[in-house]
Amino acid sequence: MGMQKKKLAKVKYTAYIGASIDGRISKDSLSSVDWTSKEDWNFFQKSLSKIDAVIVGHNTFKVSENRLKWRNTIVLTSKISHLKVEGTVTFFNPKKSNLKRFLQNKGYKKVAILGGGKVYDFCLRNKMTDKLFVTIEPYVFTTGVPMFSGNKFKKYGFILESVKRLNKKGTVLLKYKYGN
Amino acid sequence: MGMQKKKLAKVKYTAYIGASIDGRISKDSLSSVDWTSKEDWNFFQKSLSKIDAVIVGHNTFKVSENRLKWRNTIVLTSKISHLKVEGTVTFFNPKKSNLKRFLQNKGYKKVAILGGGKVYDFCLRNKMTDKLFVTIEPYVFTTGVPMFSGNKFKKYGFILESVKRLNKKGTVLLKYKYGN
Repeated sequence: MGMQKKKLAKVKYTAYIGASIDGRISKDSLSSVDWTSKEDWNFFQKSLSKIDAVIVGHNTFKVSENRLKWRNTIVLTSKISHLKVEGTVTFFNPKKSNLKRFLQNKGYKKVAILGGGKVYDFCLRNKMTDKLFVTIEPYVFTTGVPMFSGNKFKKYGFILESVKRLNKKGTVLLKYKYGN
Repeated sequence: MGMQKKKLAKVKYTAYIGASIDGRISKDSLSSVDWTSKEDWNFFQKSLSKIDAVIVGHNTFKVSENRLKWRNTIVLTSKISHLKVEGTVTFFNPKKSNLKRFLQNKGYKKVAILGGGKVYDFCLRNKMTDKLFVTIEPYVFTTGVPMFSGNKFKKYGFILESVKRLNKKGTVLLKYKYGN
């Protein structure tokens, strides 16, 4: 009576965000993402070593392509209809195909969400943010790209799991899990 | 040979900001400011007891008028040309008069900056932010009023003085001083 489906493990999603005190992730959407501290960079690289795949937006991909192209990378974009694979990189339109099913079928267990603001917002809205790491660098930008570029106000609840000071000048790493 | 000027003490400015994880201070500019935790509220009230005067924007004043009207309150507004005094409340246009000189002449030593985003930005730009208290409540809003409503990108440096967890769900209080 038809094929028996293999039970697939649930994918765990973790968003990594580096931000200023005032919640900005960069000057503009095509700015380089490497303004954060070396301590945060070290934490981030160590975390990624345990990750099966990463999700990024098209602009974030452009400014990080050299570092991402050897990872399993899903680039979210509205500019294509069918998914397009280039080596380890998959260009994916989440309005045309089911992203969660795609990731599950791939067998990924741990997926990292690396931004920018639209991608963090998309994943949060679609229940794809189990954990949230926010690194707060000790600057105020007063303008720039916000962490989450949403267009509908909602109060998503998180629970703080830990706070860690990463260096002398005061970079702070906050670890949250989703939930009220 | 003219009047001898009394040497005036330097005013110390402290900004108090309650924000979501993603750096939003409210849903919109006329939302009530009391969505933050009671632990933050207690900290805030205790801090204000040592303060000589507070600075707020017009919208923040409107939603907090009942709590502010018995304090020395400076309401920043572009809608008047000459300052207007109503009891302890002074409506002040910082484009028409010198705010720092006004506060100094009043003899205030400790002034608190209470928002909203335009006022935090104005005070930071004008070197009126010696200390910065940021309370991060464990929510993500994805949209809303940003902490600082600037229109020119700049990297203002701060130094972290302390981190404190205020309650079980994970409200965090960060204390910074201005400087690189």
